[in-house]
Amino acid sequence: MATQAEADAMRRAIALAARALGSTSPNPVVGCVLLDARGRTAGEGWHRRAGGPHAEVAALRDAADAGHDVRGGTAVVTLEPCNHTGRTGPCAQALLAAGVARVVYAVADPNPTATGGAATLAAAGVDTEGGLLADEAAAGNAAWLTSVLRDRPFVLWKYAATLDGRSAAADGTSRWITSAASRADVHRLRAEADAVVVGSGTLRADDPHLAVRGLDGVTQPLRVVVDTHATIKPGARVLDDAAPTLIAVGEDADTRHLPGTDTVRLPYGEQGLDVHALLAELHGRGVRSVLLEGGPSLAGSFVAAGAVDRIVGYLAPALLGAGPTALGDAGITTVAQTLRLAVTDVARLGPDLRITATPTASAPEEN
Amino acid sequence: MATQAEADAMRRAIALAARALGSTSPNPVVGCVLLDARGRTAGEGWHRRAGGPHAEVAALRDAADAGHDVRGGTAVVTLEPCNHTGRTGPCAQALLAAGVARVVYAVADPNPTATGGAATLAAAGVDTEGGLLADEAAAGNAAWLTSVLRDRPFVLWKYAATLDGRSAAADGTSRWITSAASRADVHRLRAEADAVVVGSGTLRADDPHLAVRGLDGVTQPLRVVVDTHATIKPGARVLDDAAPTLIAVGEDADTRHLPGTDTVRLPYGEQGLDVHALLAELHGRGVRSVLLEGGPSLAGSFVAAGAVDRIVGYLAPALLGAGPTALGDAGITTVAQTLRLAVTDVARLGPDLRITATPTASAPEEN
Repeated sequence: MATQAEADAMRRAIALAARALGSTSPNPVVGCVLLDARGRTAGEGWHRRAGGPHAEVAALRDAADAGHDVRGGTAVVTLEPCNHTGRTGPCAQALLAAGVARVVYAVADPNPTATGGAATLAAAGVDTEGGLLADEAAAGNAAWLTSVLRDRPFVLWKYAATLDGRSAAADGTSRWITSAASRADVHRLRAEADAVVVGSGTLRADDPHLAVRGLDGVTQPLRVVVDTHATIKPGARVLDDAAPTLIAVGEDADTRHLPGTDTVRLPYGEQGLDVHALLAELHGRGVRSVLLEGGPSLAGSFVAAGAVDRIVGYLAPALLGAGPTALGDAGITTVAQTLRLAVTDVARLGPDLRITATPTASAPEEN
Repeated sequence: MATQAEADAMRRAIALAARALGSTSPNPVVGCVLLDARGRTAGEGWHRRAGGPHAEVAALRDAADAGHDVRGGTAVVTLEPCNHTGRTGPCAQALLAAGVARVVYAVADPNPTATGGAATLAAAGVDTEGGLLADEAAAGNAAWLTSVLRDRPFVLWKYAATLDGRSAAADGTSRWITSAASRADVHRLRAEADAVVVGSGTLRADDPHLAVRGLDGVTQPLRVVVDTHATIKPGARVLDDAAPTLIAVGEDADTRHLPGTDTVRLPYGEQGLDVHALLAELHGRGVRSVLLEGGPSLAGSFVAAGAVDRIVGYLAPALLGAGPTALGDAGITTVAQTLRLAVTDVARLGPDLRITATPTASAPEEN
């Protein structure tokens, strides 16, 4: 049974982990707080980027730098300590070497190449306990956990619309339907994602830049344009050097006007390019979380493919009555086929509402 | 300066007034609490229906029935006591006759035929004070106050849609997008309205009944179908005897198949029948509040006419990607013309969200 001090330490560890959202892929975000033998905080750390020290090692260094003794103490970690030697050594061994007597973790590591750390520690005589604040910690690592369980990136579909569901006016204008507060929040979502995906319709309508602005020290996401017929023009803003960019085109697309641009040829699916092929390509590039920004056709093909894990809608208190809708054809023709969601959060952002929801039934993936 | 007991009494009076929403037109809802000379509650009442006793008279009777003395006491009323002799005598005189020493009211009566009650009371030596909890009381009487100020009924547009703004699936099915809790709430809105309005498209698609179900003791609203070409069939559910029904048709409509049905011929406006002519007709029939239930074309014509005073959207956490939208053409073609609203309430109803909003700028009425 975990102590109150350990629960407090876990909350802190979860908060530390969240600082690196968007910067650690293909690794999870992890936070660690070390308590000394008397239960006082001796050190803390988090995994900042792939290739850098794991959270446990960062916390051990922090304790050593401060001259704090962790022998006989407790390591509180958001994820089961790893058991494998990747670019850094196994954390289970590091904790053993430091003389930690107890390890409390929130979420068991589902990754087959890393799991087993708790068993290794227990076999060495360390008191281990899993599951403390597991739901909170899992929520903080939802993208990575989904990517491990589904073997594809976690997909968050973000849209902005009026109360009547329009994402632009009849003449195509859309600046600005939502408030500055909502638009700033989208930059946070981009910063937390490994890749930002838009379709060629959005590219033509908005010439978006898609890089993160207004936030310091973030890892820029990979900008991905789903551009079946390679219609992108060499001067498109998304092709500048603010962040890497990938253009996904059809197998038969003519890309001769795009020398030096990172392109990938994908097979066709039922609606445009095959969504699962796109996600597999991104997964292979280390992308664990995707922010899908639209437009309606691309969003429809993701929904139809059962490849949306979370929805964030920015609803402006406004009415248009005409213009493109946020979501296009998703292969749903009758009300019984409606994709049902559960609302997990409602927030006010300036005058707007931000609604977060997740599909309630298992998505009809790969059917 | 009002006392705490008077403020408490006003809150109670506002709650009493709300009990009669939908039953008093063309009169306002009014609540009254009488305090005796020592500040104790001596009686309370509210205006239940047009032609019945006003709130002050009901409260005076309640005090008399209980044997409580209100001489030298205070009348706390949500609306300035009336000064005219309609079907009931003027309340100002009744309060004077009862020997009340002080009258506290929330909202001044804007009705030119009834105003002046406070002046009459003051001239007779009664201490009068207006404005106590005026905003709360005005909110409770928003429909009636709007109807007096604009000389047309207050219009609440209610819609139900998915998060992506669809009010039905591509095949027209819509039962049920929203939850039972949301649908029950719509019956409350109907009960609070004097008239419920739908268009002929909704009539054909849903054959709606539009009467209030599941609520006891309510005054059924007038059911109004905007049916330009008189397409309604004699067996339509809306024509049963559960509530009165009015069919609004175009000047040139053939209504020979509707003998015995209450119909009104209206001129054409920019989109279908003239909305202001319809509202004038309803106002003339004593309707002070209208619940506009759709469909998208009719809602669009009301928005285009600047004749929507409040919007209540029931948003189901669901995605459809195709199908009719909640709001059709409202004459808005570019984002600068967007009808901007302010969200005044967000509530959860079962899995759904209910969003209440009001237009922020003065509507472009009569332009």
